[in-house]
Amino acid sequence: MPASNSNVPAVSETLCRFIEKATWDDLGEDVRHNTLRSLLNYFGTAFAGAHDIALDHSVAVLDEFKGSGNATLIGRAETADPLTAAFINGAAGNVHDFDDTHIRTVIHPTAPVAPALLALAERQKVSGPDFILALALGIEAALRIGNAVSPGHYARGWHITATCGVFGAALAAGKVLGLDAARLNCALGAASAQSSGLVETLGFMAKSIGVGGAARGGLLAALLAERGLDGPARPLEGPRGFLRVTGDDPRYEEVVHGLGKRWEVLKNIHKPYPCGVVLFSVIDGCMELLEAGDIAVDEIARITLYGHPLLRQRADRPDVTTGREAQVSAQHAVAAALIFGAAGLQQFTDSAVNDPRVLAFREKVFMKNDDEIDVAGVHMVIETGAGAVHEISVDGARGTDARPLSDDEIESKFRTLSMDCAPDCTRAAELIGAIRSLEQSDDVGAIMQMARPG
Amino acid sequence: MPASNSNVPAVSETLCRFIEKATWDDLGEDVRHNTLRSLLNYFGTAFAGAHDIALDHSVAVLDEFKGSGNATLIGRAETADPLTAAFINGAAGNVHDFDDTHIRTVIHPTAPVAPALLALAERQKVSGPDFILALALGIEAALRIGNAVSPGHYARGWHITATCGVFGAALAAGKVLGLDAARLNCALGAASAQSSGLVETLGFMAKSIGVGGAARGGLLAALLAERGLDGPARPLEGPRGFLRVTGDDPRYEEVVHGLGKRWEVLKNIHKPYPCGVVLFSVIDGCMELLEAGDIAVDEIARITLYGHPLLRQRADRPDVTTGREAQVSAQHAVAAALIFGAAGLQQFTDSAVNDPRVLAFREKVFMKNDDEIDVAGVHMVIETGAGAVHEISVDGARGTDARPLSDDEIESKFRTLSMDCAPDCTRAAELIGAIRSLEQSDDVGAIMQMARPG
Repeated sequence: MPASNSNVPAVSETLCRFIEKATWDDLGEDVRHNTLRSLLNYFGTAFAGAHDIALDHSVAVLDEFKGSGNATLIGRAETADPLTAAFINGAAGNVHDFDDTHIRTVIHPTAPVAPALLALAERQKVSGPDFILALALGIEAALRIGNAVSPGHYARGWHITATCGVFGAALAAGKVLGLDAARLNCALGAASAQSSGLVETLGFMAKSIGVGGAARGGLLAALLAERGLDGPARPLEGPRGFLRVTGDDPRYEEVVHGLGKRWEVLKNIHKPYPCGVVLFSVIDGCMELLEAGDIAVDEIARITLYGHPLLRQRADRPDVTTGREAQVSAQHAVAAALIFGAAGLQQFTDSAVNDPRVLAFREKVFMKNDDEIDVAGVHMVIETGAGAVHEISVDGARGTDARPLSDDEIESKFRTLSMDCAPDCTRAAELIGAIRSLEQSDDVGAIMQMARPG
Repeated sequence: MPASNSNVPAVSETLCRFIEKATWDDLGEDVRHNTLRSLLNYFGTAFAGAHDIALDHSVAVLDEFKGSGNATLIGRAETADPLTAAFINGAAGNVHDFDDTHIRTVIHPTAPVAPALLALAERQKVSGPDFILALALGIEAALRIGNAVSPGHYARGWHITATCGVFGAALAAGKVLGLDAARLNCALGAASAQSSGLVETLGFMAKSIGVGGAARGGLLAALLAERGLDGPARPLEGPRGFLRVTGDDPRYEEVVHGLGKRWEVLKNIHKPYPCGVVLFSVIDGCMELLEAGDIAVDEIARITLYGHPLLRQRADRPDVTTGREAQVSAQHAVAAALIFGAAGLQQFTDSAVNDPRVLAFREKVFMKNDDEIDVAGVHMVIETGAGAVHEISVDGARGTDARPLSDDEIESKFRTLSMDCAPDCTRAAELIGAIRSLEQSDDVGAIMQMARPG
């Protein structure tokens, strides 16, 4: 017998009505601005992921099955039908986990949502304001649905970027297609039938199949709903709907509370370093040490990190062997940042992890709990072989809510990723200006030309 | 922190090794035979579903995105690339829930598994024995994975046909592709990232997106694994793998215990009527009453069904309003079977449910519990207006384990469905012979021509 939940608020319907009615004027300047920051950051990470082996395999396999559409695969020479492009571009944006992050849910929202919209925008003319509005709404929906099932959902093993992302993609695409609330709800239903992704796949290429699938599945759901495919009245909150099935004790009201007044989009941060958020302050401290220049790295005998207990819980991993594991190793992060003087993708590869200088240095890194220190900060005590002691305190790491990346920093991250990883995309830098002025565009799809080689 | 489960048996690896090594000779005659019965039954239900509105919408939407492949959409004039064909044929086979059913798990296994294989068989030559072996193995895997999480998985809200079907499809396709155990495990990983489907969508077109997606996703997973896409070592039993995430207390050993000796394939039954299994005996009784001819239907004043308490729990629904609900209404089933003298798809439509004669008759149907009666039986007491009393007892309904449909009955079901629902497929009846002699075929894909119009 189905569990009864007649007292549960009709959040699917409320969410869809909000999305149907939302207009450009409902977005505050801050929401528009952070949405565009996320979009530029997304393009940077998609360039970075474009030639990852998971992408190469996916593109090679899908080549045989794709339709004749001419949608862009970011950073690649091939083109594809819009559904396939959404899949590939979704996978590319998230493959390195360097994309935007909503700290509370650990959702990387733009990777599943933006590719569905970009593929649509290459299929039909979409104006800048319509695109930004749909992107903001899709991200907002994914994050709110994630809030309703967090933290239990991810802890249980759901790869929340994919499982919630498909709903955001469906609603964003549905908004651009002009679906009314009833049709948007059908899109949620078709998305719910495709919501998938397991944490067990993280660190493997299989992860990307979940994230790419969320982008593709969301776009497909919206197109099916547009055509007339129906779904349950309460795909999210029904007794056998997404929230109850994948959330042990969902807080349904999180989906709709304060919609249009309070935006989760504003809590979406952009990573300065391709690693776990708890390590941002640690790397900031290392960079500060290098910039100060008081100490040569080879003089250092010992570094002790005093941090909030969460720092040790998440990142006390002295013996990691792969780039993937290194993303949550404080010992590696300190060693690599100081040895290489940088903390980009190159510093979190298998080869960086196994560099003898890094292996030697990480032996010198120790961690201690200090409840007084904020989770976004760290206190570092650096001792030299000669007995000198330096101390560095970081409050509010770069990239966290306390100190979001500046627009310049995001642009710089974008430039580095696109130049390093997709040097043949000679027009990539034009995307910075195109996205900055996207509000004036009458054809967002046109910017995808800048994401192609040559 | 990931939950530890180092004591959990490595069932993914064991399953994949079994599938790699399995040969034609490992299948008993009974397993081969029931696999072919399921395949013929599948074709019947796919013809029946071919023009359902959920299919029409899906084909219309996917037409724009599909590749140039020439794979058959069963019962339809269009063709598609193999991935799209797997999706559509998977959805078609299950849309009416008239396909084969594994009672313990409620999995309809052939709809997600066979279409992945059929699409492959139109892409490359696959012999009859290779096809039958892969189909049996894929069904077996889906059912065993389902056993490990049943009954909690479906009860929680997972549409188990889709969630487990994707693994069966991946392994079946991987077997035909000749993947070794390590690659098969990667296919399981890619399948795990796509495993989806919610019970909330049942009764709506959105359901078919989950089931079609399982067939497509399984085929895609196998092709990606063949290409080199990697996945976690323990996609099923890992701490954040499928079994633990979607099963509250999984019995891991069910996946592998007695593999090759005890076959779940043999417990896959074929429905005589398009409704819940508990109603089979009730309809059998009605048919017996009609055949006996002792009583005219309009003489009946009251029918009381004495059944195992499960019958009332599942099917005491006197006031249903849709064909979908009617599938689990004893009152409707009795009324429709007696009024129309049949219990096929036509008797479980919205219009049959709302037929005034049916509405009037179902008022005469009453239900009583009797613990002594087996769940596959029923005792019916029929009273006429003139005061005569007739009694009918059914032990072991048609279609249940106790009395499986005969080969003739499955062929008859196939003929009815294909003729009624796809009359333009003039070669459909040839499939009966083709499947009966599939073991001798050197090109299974060729039979798909018989599933096309004209």
